[in-house]
Amino acid sequence: MIGIDWGTSSLRAYRLGEDGRVREKRDGAHGILTVPAGGFPDALRRVVGDWLADGERRVLLCGMVGSRQGWVEAPYLPCPAGPAEIAAALTPVPFADAETRLVPGLVTRDAGGVPDVMRGEETKLLGLLAAGVAGQVCLPGTHSKWVRLAGGRVTGFATHMTGEVRAVLLAHSILGRLAAAGEAAFAPAAFGRGVARSGEAGGLLHHAFGTRGLGLLGELGEAETASYLSGLLIGHEVRAALRPGEPVHLAAAETLAAPYQAALRLLGAECRMHDPDIVVAGLVGIGRHWA
Amino acid sequence: MIGIDWGTSSLRAYRLGEDGRVREKRDGAHGILTVPAGGFPDALRRVVGDWLADGERRVLLCGMVGSRQGWVEAPYLPCPAGPAEIAAALTPVPFADAETRLVPGLVTRDAGGVPDVMRGEETKLLGLLAAGVAGQVCLPGTHSKWVRLAGGRVTGFATHMTGEVRAVLLAHSILGRLAAAGEAAFAPAAFGRGVARSGEAGGLLHHAFGTRGLGLLGELGEAETASYLSGLLIGHEVRAALRPGEPVHLAAAETLAAPYQAALRLLGAECRMHDPDIVVAGLVGIGRHWA
Repeated sequence: MIGIDWGTSSLRAYRLGEDGRVREKRDGAHGILTVPAGGFPDALRRVVGDWLADGERRVLLCGMVGSRQGWVEAPYLPCPAGPAEIAAALTPVPFADAETRLVPGLVTRDAGGVPDVMRGEETKLLGLLAAGVAGQVCLPGTHSKWVRLAGGRVTGFATHMTGEVRAVLLAHSILGRLAAAGEAAFAPAAFGRGVARSGEAGGLLHHAFGTRGLGLLGELGEAETASYLSGLLIGHEVRAALRPGEPVHLAAAETLAAPYQAALRLLGAECRMHDPDIVVAGLVGIGRHWA
Repeated sequence: MIGIDWGTSSLRAYRLGEDGRVREKRDGAHGILTVPAGGFPDALRRVVGDWLADGERRVLLCGMVGSRQGWVEAPYLPCPAGPAEIAAALTPVPFADAETRLVPGLVTRDAGGVPDVMRGEETKLLGLLAAGVAGQVCLPGTHSKWVRLAGGRVTGFATHMTGEVRAVLLAHSILGRLAAAGEAAFAPAAFGRGVARSGEAGGLLHHAFGTRGLGLLGELGEAETASYLSGLLIGHEVRAALRPGEPVHLAAAETLAAPYQAALRLLGAECRMHDPDIVVAGLVGIGRHWA
């Protein structure tokens, strides 16, 4: 089977053996935003055409390729949902070269009745469930997901726009003018100041402007601004999302693992790290249910 | 005297009589961002050259023209500060055609010790003080100011980045994709939903993403997205900034008066409206102290 995590800006393809092991892996910047209308079959052939020619007959896709902007829109499956529900809700994709299916995203509602969605992360969560993980999970990113796993299923989740808010503030708001150009190195002390600040009175919209006040008065250096802002935003996220007294299962890409670990430590939460590449285990698990 | 409120993107010039009345007024898009390096004297002559030729000998400037990106940088004056302190701290500006001075901005520190700054609003606040206003003041805008007036002085303030965060989220984040193109009409019901949402658990970074969830599931229309987001952000701002049980003195430009009045009403605060053009009274007041 071929498993593909096809997101907005990147694509990861895995050629999987009968035993679930990765035989070959390909990474690329062929995210769905680079694919022209009607261009998905050709885009897929360019990445894994040789695997198909070599006899692979099944392709399992997850991620934003199943969104309105993707190949085919796969409906969101309501929580709670586990491996059985997700495997039973695959959406067939018209592709001449192989039997191809899409993993559905998940939808939940919070206490206020407002819907929240994920697409791609559900497959990573199946990987964690397969490893026996339960409790609260944090998947940091552009849109961080805080997830509850119980009874072998995803019972609910909340998305925080932390990564995207940080990026647009640095690129397009007045806060970016006081930050060093380019991506500055992670500055742990400035990050910690931001995390501490997130617990004070005033709210995020006031705290964000404080980044400028500190910069203007020479109390925060240009090279520290991005890290301070990260600490502020991640601090607000963790304080709002954390269920205290329980460990947080964290599966983060390398650049996000350090700040989230630091914030969780500063806020007194125990952190258990997981391989960020858990999507493979999820794809393999769904493949086993594929009758 | 000539009084000028010279901001980042606009300029307002007033020719003032001995009695403090506005004899003539000019508005323009000649904000400091349009002025090339060294170009401030010429830019000023283009706007009020005929008034100077007609005998005006004094020019009083306030706003971002006194910032690092402006003509001359005027230091921030610490709070508490009233008309006497501000008038005593004017910065002279080298200009051959008239005696020219800059109004200083103000700086304060909140309970956490983080500095906050204003530049231009201090002159508006002097206008309110001259009218006998005391208590809490809200000056909405790109960077909303919540100010405390007591004993005839500005005793402290807090800035909220509400307007700028709204603008960058709609223009540059995923939330803009579900919003109608252009500036949609104010939708009071969607705004009210946003204000109510701001009081629920989850925090602003989660609430912001909820705007997308509602849009994706057809529970918020494209034409309602911008108003819902306004309600969410202004709701967070007001809940964090409001001192309950006291009226809010609101001086807002027309497009901001309606949403802030609506949010304050929804949150049970009494609102007293003031002319948004109060900067004139502040300029006149400082002019009277100009020995």
